[in-house]
Amino acid sequence: MPFHTLRRLGVRISSAVRCLFAQVESPEARYRNFNGRYFSGFYEQERMLADKPRMEFYRAAIQRHIQPGDRVVDLGTGTGILAALASRRGAAKVYAIDHSSILETARTLATANGIERVEFVSTHSTEFRLPERVDVILHEQMGDCLFDEAMVANVSDLRDRLLKPGGLILPSLFEFFCEPIKIRNERHVPFIWELAVHGYDYSVLERQRPQDPDYYQVRSSDLALVEHFLGEPAPVLTLDLHTVNEAALPHALTFTRTVVNAGRLDGYAVYFRTHVDTDLSLGSGPLDPGRAPHWGFRVLRTDRDDFAAGDVIEVQLTVGRWSELDTWRWKHVKHARADDPALSATA
Amino acid sequence: MPFHTLRRLGVRISSAVRCLFAQVESPEARYRNFNGRYFSGFYEQERMLADKPRMEFYRAAIQRHIQPGDRVVDLGTGTGILAALASRRGAAKVYAIDHSSILETARTLATANGIERVEFVSTHSTEFRLPERVDVILHEQMGDCLFDEAMVANVSDLRDRLLKPGGLILPSLFEFFCEPIKIRNERHVPFIWELAVHGYDYSVLERQRPQDPDYYQVRSSDLALVEHFLGEPAPVLTLDLHTVNEAALPHALTFTRTVVNAGRLDGYAVYFRTHVDTDLSLGSGPLDPGRAPHWGFRVLRTDRDDFAAGDVIEVQLTVGRWSELDTWRWKHVKHARADDPALSATA
Repeated sequence: MPFHTLRRLGVRISSAVRCLFAQVESPEARYRNFNGRYFSGFYEQERMLADKPRMEFYRAAIQRHIQPGDRVVDLGTGTGILAALASRRGAAKVYAIDHSSILETARTLATANGIERVEFVSTHSTEFRLPERVDVILHEQMGDCLFDEAMVANVSDLRDRLLKPGGLILPSLFEFFCEPIKIRNERHVPFIWELAVHGYDYSVLERQRPQDPDYYQVRSSDLALVEHFLGEPAPVLTLDLHTVNEAALPHALTFTRTVVNAGRLDGYAVYFRTHVDTDLSLGSGPLDPGRAPHWGFRVLRTDRDDFAAGDVIEVQLTVGRWSELDTWRWKHVKHARADDPALSATA
Repeated sequence: MPFHTLRRLGVRISSAVRCLFAQVESPEARYRNFNGRYFSGFYEQERMLADKPRMEFYRAAIQRHIQPGDRVVDLGTGTGILAALASRRGAAKVYAIDHSSILETARTLATANGIERVEFVSTHSTEFRLPERVDVILHEQMGDCLFDEAMVANVSDLRDRLLKPGGLILPSLFEFFCEPIKIRNERHVPFIWELAVHGYDYSVLERQRPQDPDYYQVRSSDLALVEHFLGEPAPVLTLDLHTVNEAALPHALTFTRTVVNAGRLDGYAVYFRTHVDTDLSLGSGPLDPGRAPHWGFRVLRTDRDDFAAGDVIEVQLTVGRWSELDTWRWKHVKHARADDPALSATA
């Protein structure tokens, strides 16, 4: 039995955070404290910097959409590379803000690289003030589940207070995916009550279904986990950070997939894609060619169910707060093709 | 930037453990407390139970090597499946011990499955006493890095106190591997000071090399991470739990690999294989066909270095305590084939 597993990362992080910051009440403050420590380490930064699709996406986005003379806020600058690229592109001024101690590293690197016109500000973005508005908000606040780094709250707050009318958020257009998948048989882990191992039957445990929401999610970066999507993938939510507010996000989504790959449904892969141009986008989907490798993805697990080609999976996702994965709930309804004249007629 | 990554699991676990058990001093007690909580959850048990090579290995090992009438201790029984298989094989008595709360689940399952002659004992193995010795110690105490679940200390303690002379430990024969690897280019993450990203140079950070040993290790279950071994894999340590004691484990290993796959060395993949018969073994190596999928593996990272075919990598691994990964240190010496007449002569 392995000491370290992918799965319980979330639990362990929450345990550490709950413990370290037991005196702090709000989820925002808790995440902010966690985040400030998490991104202060070199390894997290290395993974983001070594992610070539990610870095090429940002290089091209900055080259195409930041104009010489622009005033820019780089929200969560990390090691400062996006601020540096904006400066080299000709930005008149870049405010590179971060509340993690990594900001000292960013200062060191900017000096070593001869970067000018970047002001490093050690603060959380919600505390950042300026006497006049800026032309561009630059950010990389996307979490594995798009929303889990408080992107919508943080970017829309800066936008409303500090972005000029008509100013640019880079990136702003997002597609959120929640695709029914089958996991490869050798990697599939059923719920414990679905197991029978060499004649030892676990079904008696169904009555002990855990209440911990985390139990129903698998975190992974292992692309080999996913065998296929059951249907044709399509975004179930799209948003533009120029206009969206957290309060405007829906709390319930219902969507359907017509099954093209028959067989077992193991859960839903959660991932995102962001677009800045028709030919410039960045995706974290497990089956995306050229996906940005440092993002993981989440699988929302389902009870054992099997589908035939032409069946329709109707998925209902409800969300308390998008940034808090523990508030997500999901279930599905199976519409068997043969059983449903309406579906048969349109198939 | 992803909220959840594979890499920092260890740090987060240690943080949680340090925090939750700050009053506890010894590493043994710390691990024991962590372990008692970690394996109490269903998901960890599910992953082990759904690991078909693991379960088939144990089923066959029990069938072949436990005799009707044997008295057995199952060390760390978890959900009790190995104890149940031993009972069904005809063991006269099985003591199924575990110090995690999962033991209540094991009792429930045994009752539901009509398992007899198993006595469940809620205790840590080091506290377990019996008036007479047993024929077999059955266990699955292998961690991702073989030693990281205190296998040697726990099994040898039980052996010395409770196993009959000539009694059987199942499994007992282990090979430990530490193979030089190349990671696939798209997944390779250099040290931060080795990076230059779109003209932004990070070399100034070399002087800030982190002191945290954890920074120099990557945890993964993603087999696609490893492109190849640089040399031919071979165990660097073998042990038999019938005879080994923790004190007898070496604190320094030096081994060499002649490079057959030229190119970059990214680190060393740490994994194990255990054998109970010439045709029955279980392995966790990233390139093993039929590997047990629920075990991850560790990569011990190295600074940038490149090798030509025929070069010899001399690896020096020193270990304070095998069960504590933070005490492991490693470095290598490159013997270039052309530069070394002795190596050329034997190549």
